[in-house]
Amino acid sequence: MRGIKMIKIYQEDLETMKRIVADYTEQVVDFEIEAKVQAIITQVRKRGDQALIDYARQFDGVSLTDLKVAEEQLEQAWLQLDDSLKTSLKLAAQNITSFHELEKEKGFVDASQAGIVRGQKVTPLKRVGLYVPGGTAAYPSTILMNAIPAKLAGVEELVVVTPPQKEGINQAVLAAAKLAGVDAIYQVGGAQAIAALAYGTETIKPVDKIVGPGNIFVATAKKQVFGTVAIDMVAGPSEIGILADDSAQASEIAADLLSQAEHDKRARAMLITNSLSLAQAVAKEVERQLVNLPRKEIAQAAIMDRSFIAVMPQIAEMFDLMNTIAPEHLEIQLTEPTAYLGLVKNAGSVFLGRYASEPLGDYLAGPNHVLPTGGTARFSSPLGVYDFVKRIQFVQYSKEALAEVEKAVTTLARTEGLEAHARALESRFTNYEGE
Amino acid sequence: MRGIKMIKIYQEDLETMKRIVADYTEQVVDFEIEAKVQAIITQVRKRGDQALIDYARQFDGVSLTDLKVAEEQLEQAWLQLDDSLKTSLKLAAQNITSFHELEKEKGFVDASQAGIVRGQKVTPLKRVGLYVPGGTAAYPSTILMNAIPAKLAGVEELVVVTPPQKEGINQAVLAAAKLAGVDAIYQVGGAQAIAALAYGTETIKPVDKIVGPGNIFVATAKKQVFGTVAIDMVAGPSEIGILADDSAQASEIAADLLSQAEHDKRARAMLITNSLSLAQAVAKEVERQLVNLPRKEIAQAAIMDRSFIAVMPQIAEMFDLMNTIAPEHLEIQLTEPTAYLGLVKNAGSVFLGRYASEPLGDYLAGPNHVLPTGGTARFSSPLGVYDFVKRIQFVQYSKEALAEVEKAVTTLARTEGLEAHARALESRFTNYEGE
Repeated sequence: MRGIKMIKIYQEDLETMKRIVADYTEQVVDFEIEAKVQAIITQVRKRGDQALIDYARQFDGVSLTDLKVAEEQLEQAWLQLDDSLKTSLKLAAQNITSFHELEKEKGFVDASQAGIVRGQKVTPLKRVGLYVPGGTAAYPSTILMNAIPAKLAGVEELVVVTPPQKEGINQAVLAAAKLAGVDAIYQVGGAQAIAALAYGTETIKPVDKIVGPGNIFVATAKKQVFGTVAIDMVAGPSEIGILADDSAQASEIAADLLSQAEHDKRARAMLITNSLSLAQAVAKEVERQLVNLPRKEIAQAAIMDRSFIAVMPQIAEMFDLMNTIAPEHLEIQLTEPTAYLGLVKNAGSVFLGRYASEPLGDYLAGPNHVLPTGGTARFSSPLGVYDFVKRIQFVQYSKEALAEVEKAVTTLARTEGLEAHARALESRFTNYEGE
Repeated sequence: MRGIKMIKIYQEDLETMKRIVADYTEQVVDFEIEAKVQAIITQVRKRGDQALIDYARQFDGVSLTDLKVAEEQLEQAWLQLDDSLKTSLKLAAQNITSFHELEKEKGFVDASQAGIVRGQKVTPLKRVGLYVPGGTAAYPSTILMNAIPAKLAGVEELVVVTPPQKEGINQAVLAAAKLAGVDAIYQVGGAQAIAALAYGTETIKPVDKIVGPGNIFVATAKKQVFGTVAIDMVAGPSEIGILADDSAQASEIAADLLSQAEHDKRARAMLITNSLSLAQAVAKEVERQLVNLPRKEIAQAAIMDRSFIAVMPQIAEMFDLMNTIAPEHLEIQLTEPTAYLGLVKNAGSVFLGRYASEPLGDYLAGPNHVLPTGGTARFSSPLGVYDFVKRIQFVQYSKEALAEVEKAVTTLARTEGLEAHARALESRFTNYEGE
């Protein structure tokens, strides 16, 4: 165990802790990457498919004859999948579906006033693109988490883009795509994939929204095409925040902290507790469990550089600090955890009690695992069915109903100096003559 | 009437029309403005209030002693307001409130499976900033449309920023702010106001989301701080699309087209009709009504440069083209307008029938007037209560419920190469020993 530095333990007051955690969230813009991405987007807009094929050779070392993955390959991948994996994916899909069904919105109509109908209808986006990273970050679970809400929303065409791989696309990813009802998969990655989805090429139709995680090139490209299409949030490194007291098990807390730390060297694992003895026991357990993890190097970097334990005497202060952090994942391992749900103001997904270990939510409980990071849970929501619809308002007035409000509308319009607005209403009752 | 060029009338097939309308939506990035805005943001982050006071002198020609507008000024503005304006604002606020009440979301809980509780709670954003332009674009209606949904959502602190004016802030704006329950108003405009809201200064607390319209500096600054805070859509020039047949009145259609054209030289007014005679009559009426409009110069530029009438024989094609345009405002002036609501796929707000003249929606009907422009109605919604809340998921499992899915979770985790994820779950049932 020698050589592994312990996770930091702070014993500071609330204001000091708030300053410390603020230092962890500073963002950086890399102008060199911005420029490279812009050049790639320009090429894809100019040269379409050919640009995608050229980039596949240059960046991925793959010579493509066809950008689209054949339908049969998805079917095959599903059929040949290991049985226990098949069962697990099906159970996950079932839970994700039953949870996200509850997010569906119906719109409304208000016909409570004479001569007036007002309402809002909810309409699915027509086409959505889902980016799936290549290599070891090609997660079948991410396909389910993105695709199922989109299909439940009623999206007509859901296409996946994923970097071409010399050894072919990950079979579990293809199988998950089949299971989730993805309509097509294209072998294209990086900023060029985002450009193709935003602007279209000969083979790939432009979409209305792009979702899914990716590296810095993908994230930068998503920001650059934002406005032409919608994007989901730009995901940062994974985070877990745990609130625990003496009733919690140090070994379990440590295991949960490490489960997020193994994602990324920049991941953050944070424990806030009112028990110094728990803090010390967890720190020790983290060291012990870290030793024989396959992704030890990654987890250790995250633990040493970006993680901490804070000891604070008051439960109210523990929540205050955690709400300031606004963690992606929040575990409440306090006696009577559910009672504290009301104190949670900012978090992506909350795990209540000892048996709601965070990885349960990554895969199987049903709530989404695409969550706001980097403090954006202050204003962002988990990915959901609501991300794949838009609302359209409507209104109808009878002549009598309009007559009743004519004066109010024209008064407001003229106050704002918008004479043509006033006259449009008045045209229903009088004819304006040009001079 | 001589010298005014008629609105263009096209008689092309659907595909040609789709290409023509696509040319209207190209976006441009201005790097010089981007750099200026970045410099302003940096100054505000470094120098706080003093930077705001310096910019007020430099850009607005106003020497400020206090950034905050005194509470009493709002109260005074409301009390001294002209009675008919007071009545009109109150009626508008009442209708906006009753419509947006229907947008409130409650979250859900699913306790249908033994040992499992899953759900989602809806939580208001804590602090929101609303930008209100100065000069002639200071619209009291915009205050109501932004502030009322925010307050209904439960936002704790809603602050307005608006450029300092030599003659003082528009009294109608102050009165509307009072009526809508705005918590504070600060005299700061432009990119510096957005920077202050995003990062905070000595006087202005940082907010979670920034909403409201503004010029190119405001829009660029909003894009630059996006991610640190949430922003609403970046609004483009106003648009109206009208679908009409021979049952419509040319003078009324023309008046409605002009009501949007008077907003901005880059506004777009578009009529799609299956009647050539209506097309010609509307074109003539537009010319006639334009002549004596106070904002004639603006409206004329919008009509000549950016507007058109398209004649198409089939109703289905008329809707297809309009859905491609995805207009901010859509009027359906067809016989039996309501029956066509199902054909509307992309639009911000729909006005059904002869008496739902678009300006009714700008002020008084109740649905929001902050709407997606520039084709973004393909994927964006009107501003609503849902823009001022975020969702937080939660899940709780019993030991038995977790045991039942343990295998599925660990299978998926190990498939994805995330051993620590699997072990976190297993830690609830076995103790891992370090090697």
